[in-house]
Amino acid sequence: MPVGTRGTVKAVSPEELRALGAHVILSNTYHLSVRPGSALIREAGGLHKFMGWDRVILTDSGGFQVFSLAKLRRLTEVGVTFQNHVDGGRCELTPENVMEIQRDLGSDIAMVLDECPPYGCTQEYAAVSMALTHRWAERTKNWLEKNSSYRPPLVFAIAQGSVFPELRKQSAEFLAGLDFDGYAIGGVSVGESEQEMMSAVESCCPNFPINKPRYAMGLGTPEQIVELIARGVDLFDCVLPTRVARNGTAFIPGGTLNIKNAEHAKSLIPIQEGCTCPACRTFTRAYIRHLVKCDEILGIRLISLHNLNFYLDLVRRARAAILNGTFASFRSSQSF
Amino acid sequence: MPVGTRGTVKAVSPEELRALGAHVILSNTYHLSVRPGSALIREAGGLHKFMGWDRVILTDSGGFQVFSLAKLRRLTEVGVTFQNHVDGGRCELTPENVMEIQRDLGSDIAMVLDECPPYGCTQEYAAVSMALTHRWAERTKNWLEKNSSYRPPLVFAIAQGSVFPELRKQSAEFLAGLDFDGYAIGGVSVGESEQEMMSAVESCCPNFPINKPRYAMGLGTPEQIVELIARGVDLFDCVLPTRVARNGTAFIPGGTLNIKNAEHAKSLIPIQEGCTCPACRTFTRAYIRHLVKCDEILGIRLISLHNLNFYLDLVRRARAAILNGTFASFRSSQSF
Repeated sequence: MPVGTRGTVKAVSPEELRALGAHVILSNTYHLSVRPGSALIREAGGLHKFMGWDRVILTDSGGFQVFSLAKLRRLTEVGVTFQNHVDGGRCELTPENVMEIQRDLGSDIAMVLDECPPYGCTQEYAAVSMALTHRWAERTKNWLEKNSSYRPPLVFAIAQGSVFPELRKQSAEFLAGLDFDGYAIGGVSVGESEQEMMSAVESCCPNFPINKPRYAMGLGTPEQIVELIARGVDLFDCVLPTRVARNGTAFIPGGTLNIKNAEHAKSLIPIQEGCTCPACRTFTRAYIRHLVKCDEILGIRLISLHNLNFYLDLVRRARAAILNGTFASFRSSQSF
Repeated sequence: MPVGTRGTVKAVSPEELRALGAHVILSNTYHLSVRPGSALIREAGGLHKFMGWDRVILTDSGGFQVFSLAKLRRLTEVGVTFQNHVDGGRCELTPENVMEIQRDLGSDIAMVLDECPPYGCTQEYAAVSMALTHRWAERTKNWLEKNSSYRPPLVFAIAQGSVFPELRKQSAEFLAGLDFDGYAIGGVSVGESEQEMMSAVESCCPNFPINKPRYAMGLGTPEQIVELIARGVDLFDCVLPTRVARNGTAFIPGGTLNIKNAEHAKSLIPIQEGCTCPACRTFTRAYIRHLVKCDEILGIRLISLHNLNFYLDLVRRARAAILNGTFASFRSSQSF
């Protein structure tokens, strides 16, 4: 899922995303609630219409952002109150109101509110936090049952448990029992090692229902994505394709290249030979480097398109390999 | 002509420009020579291929930029030497080498090298400067005759003479005698009043050949463009559509609006009702304001597309009115 935190995938248009074959984008309840506000988006006919995207939208609940961005945070059983990072306005998120907000946004897939414990917390802290996340998930289920005629179409739960395998397992099992539409692994990509991240995923996945989609939140590099698919993950969101593009970095088979490097100054080949993205179809490395060196917006845009295509193509090929029964050879043939 | 000084019309793609119906874009010899260098562009197959634009390119010679941007400028009969504004590299532009550079770029329409005197100069200075510009135009003609098999397809001369009507008239008459492919009014939009600018154009136009295109360089507002068309000008380049977009300003009938104003925060209408540009077809003022307030690139891009469409539509309608014999009523019906 390309990441459109604030209702736009950075530097690219909805039309371009459709042409790349993106089917789902991620947006964010916290960010949109702060600015421009969910009431406006509801009045505009929902986020799809507001941002001109007619395919699927998954919205994160904002839990992660409250714990990473907001100030003067106060966590209670009821929910979390905080000052937002934009104008310091006071907000409250509860398991119930994040469902209401995501319903107002018109999300196709809403995420439950969770508490995301910081990396490095004790197992005791992680266990207490996980229990709260579980109670919030139960309240979410209650809200969904009471509001069955007016709720987000699909709602995914989020397993927590930090880097502790036993907690991760418990969290996945507990949430599986609540019968959500899909299951996410949260609290990853928060500073832990790759090994700890993989371990968290490995502790969750086998304990999620086999017939429900699994989503690893905020991950990862191309290499990690292939390895996570191998562990049973179906869905990903990652800011890397657009974030690194703004620094001139493009994904290519075998790694990355930074277009600002002098070696590309006279290079008349595309970013990636054979790539069919809008950047590689028409433009050379030398041209895109010229744009980036001159701070021209089109440079960021072209690299963003290339990187998004790289990720989308990677998961498309992984999916095809699974369907063909050739995933093992696909996985081992990837060179990053 | 949308302005693509450094080989890109800011924030938009060649494909988008084609869809807007742009036929000619402007690029700049000085800027491209400094970065990325005309040798690279020649090696890449010319500017059309380098930047992915298959329609007409007009390149300014760089004279104006030497006089507005470069440092340690030294003007002689031969040409002008200077340090460029990017890395301080020493460059020389002469009437002959700007033809060579524009040929290397693959310009369809090249401009002669001229000296652009500063606004506020004396008539004596303007006359001496104009005479140099004329001698350079003669040298350009000589170069073109000697290089008839390998030269830019079309070359336009540039009339100077500052704000002095008699000099402007002399300049237009002198250059008309040299039989260039088109004629430009240079040295405008350099700080003079609108009245002085109009006077310069009025002194030039009647003295240009009736059967050659006339180009007012670096102009103007929508209102000015209609008034300049009324005075016989055919071609314009103006940075306003893309420059003001970066500040959140959109052109609409009757004036401009700044999307950042609070009044647009909840406005669910397009920038301009009835406008068929890609921004107005899909997005509301509230959404575009949200993007601009969040510094999202798509906001600049959408307003740039709207503003370019506004200008292109304006000149298309002016052209149709001329062909229909209804230009006078078109002109008086414009409200800016």
